[in-house]
Amino acid sequence: MASNQQVKILGFVASPFVARAELALKLKGVQYEYIQESLANKSDLFLKSNPVHKKVPVLLHNNKPVCESLVIVEYVDETWTGHPILPSDPYYRALSRFWSRFIEDQVWLAVFKAAWNPNKQEREKGAEEAREALKIMDKELKVNGKFFNGDSVGFLDIAALIIFYWVPIIQEASEFNVYSGDKYPNLEKWGQEVLNDPVVKGVLPPRDVLLSFFKTRFQSLVGSK
Amino acid sequence: MASNQQVKILGFVASPFVARAELALKLKGVQYEYIQESLANKSDLFLKSNPVHKKVPVLLHNNKPVCESLVIVEYVDETWTGHPILPSDPYYRALSRFWSRFIEDQVWLAVFKAAWNPNKQEREKGAEEAREALKIMDKELKVNGKFFNGDSVGFLDIAALIIFYWVPIIQEASEFNVYSGDKYPNLEKWGQEVLNDPVVKGVLPPRDVLLSFFKTRFQSLVGSK
Repeated sequence: MASNQQVKILGFVASPFVARAELALKLKGVQYEYIQESLANKSDLFLKSNPVHKKVPVLLHNNKPVCESLVIVEYVDETWTGHPILPSDPYYRALSRFWSRFIEDQVWLAVFKAAWNPNKQEREKGAEEAREALKIMDKELKVNGKFFNGDSVGFLDIAALIIFYWVPIIQEASEFNVYSGDKYPNLEKWGQEVLNDPVVKGVLPPRDVLLSFFKTRFQSLVGSK
Repeated sequence: MASNQQVKILGFVASPFVARAELALKLKGVQYEYIQESLANKSDLFLKSNPVHKKVPVLLHNNKPVCESLVIVEYVDETWTGHPILPSDPYYRALSRFWSRFIEDQVWLAVFKAAWNPNKQEREKGAEEAREALKIMDKELKVNGKFFNGDSVGFLDIAALIIFYWVPIIQEASEFNVYSGDKYPNLEKWGQEVLNDPVVKGVLPPRDVLLSFFKTRFQSLVGSK
C-alpha cells in the first residue's frame, strides 16, 4: 500500500458487521488503524462519518467515509488489488449479492427479533422466521466449491459469517434455538470451511467475550419479560 | 447483441422494481422479451425462476435467472458494454450502493407501511418515518451533476425513480402525504432531471394506469379501516 494511503476502521468489538470490513481488508493485505468506538458515547469523528445511520463499521480511506458493511467490502475489493473478493463471473456476483441481501433482510432481521424483542411472542415469531429463512437457504443456495464460489474466501462467505459464528453465540445468550448445524447440512458444511480459514479466524472476536456481551445485552433489553 | 443471447424479463406492469430492470436493459440497448406475470396466478416458469422470493422482476439470461431489481441492474451493467450504469470511481460506486440501500430499507419500507398497513395508526407512523427518511436524504445526499453522478442516468438514478415517480402516485391513491417536492428541494431538482430523461420516460407506465391500480390495491388492503 502506498505510504500516502490512510485507512481506518471505526468499530466495536462485538459487531459481526465490523468483522466483515476487517476481513475484507485483511484478505487484501491492507494495513489499517482500528479505532474502537463507544456506542454509548459516540465520537464526533464517528457521528460526522456516518450521520445517516450512526452505526459501525465506518471505513475511512484518506478521510473519506464509506458506510454499511457490505458496501465497504465491495469498496475494498474495487480499490485494492490482490485477493479477489467478488467472483469474476457476473452470474456468481449476482448470486453473491442476492444471497447477501437474503442474509440481511431475512435471516438477520429475524434473528434480531428472536434475540432482543422485548415481547416474548415476537421473539418466538422471530425464531420461527429465522428457521424458515435458514431452511430456504439450505435448500436453494448452491455452494460451488470449498467456499461459496471456489477455493478462496469471497463476498458471500464474508456476508454469511454472521450465521456461522455469531448466531450460535447469540442464541445461547438469548435462550432461543434457531441454528443447529445438523438441521441445515449444506450450511453446516460450508460454515465449517469458512470458520477454518486462517484469515477468517484472525478477525473473530473470542467466543467468551461475545457470549458475555450478548448475555448482558439480552438481560438489559429483555430481562425476564 | 449476439443472436445466441436470449434475454427475458418476467414482470408486472405496476411494479417500480420491474421498471428498474427494464431501464437498465434499455440504457444498454439490450433487446429483451417482456413476459407479463399474473401475481394472482404465478406461472411455473416464474416460480421456478424465483423460488426464494416469488417476486418480479426476474431477468432470464440464456435461461439463467437473476432476481432482485438492484442485483439485476448490476448484473446488466457487468454483462453488457455500452452506457455505464455504476460510476467508475469506487467511492461513487459505494455511495450509489449505500443510498440505494437507504431507499429500499428506509424510504420504501416506510412508504409501504404508510400506504397499505391495515392499521391507521401504523399508516400514520409509516408516513412520518418516510418523511423523516426523505428529509435525511435531501440533506445528506450530494448530487454530483445533472444526475447523481454526472450527465447520464446511473445506478442511483435508477434506484431513486421509485421516489420520483411512484411515491407521488401511491400517496394520491392511498390518501397520505409523504413526498411534496418543494419540501425536499434537492431531491425535487434531481428528480426532475431523471423524469425528463427520454430513456427513463420510455419505461414509465402511464400515470392513470398506476393510479387506478394503486387505488384498487388501497381499497382491497385498507378499505375504510
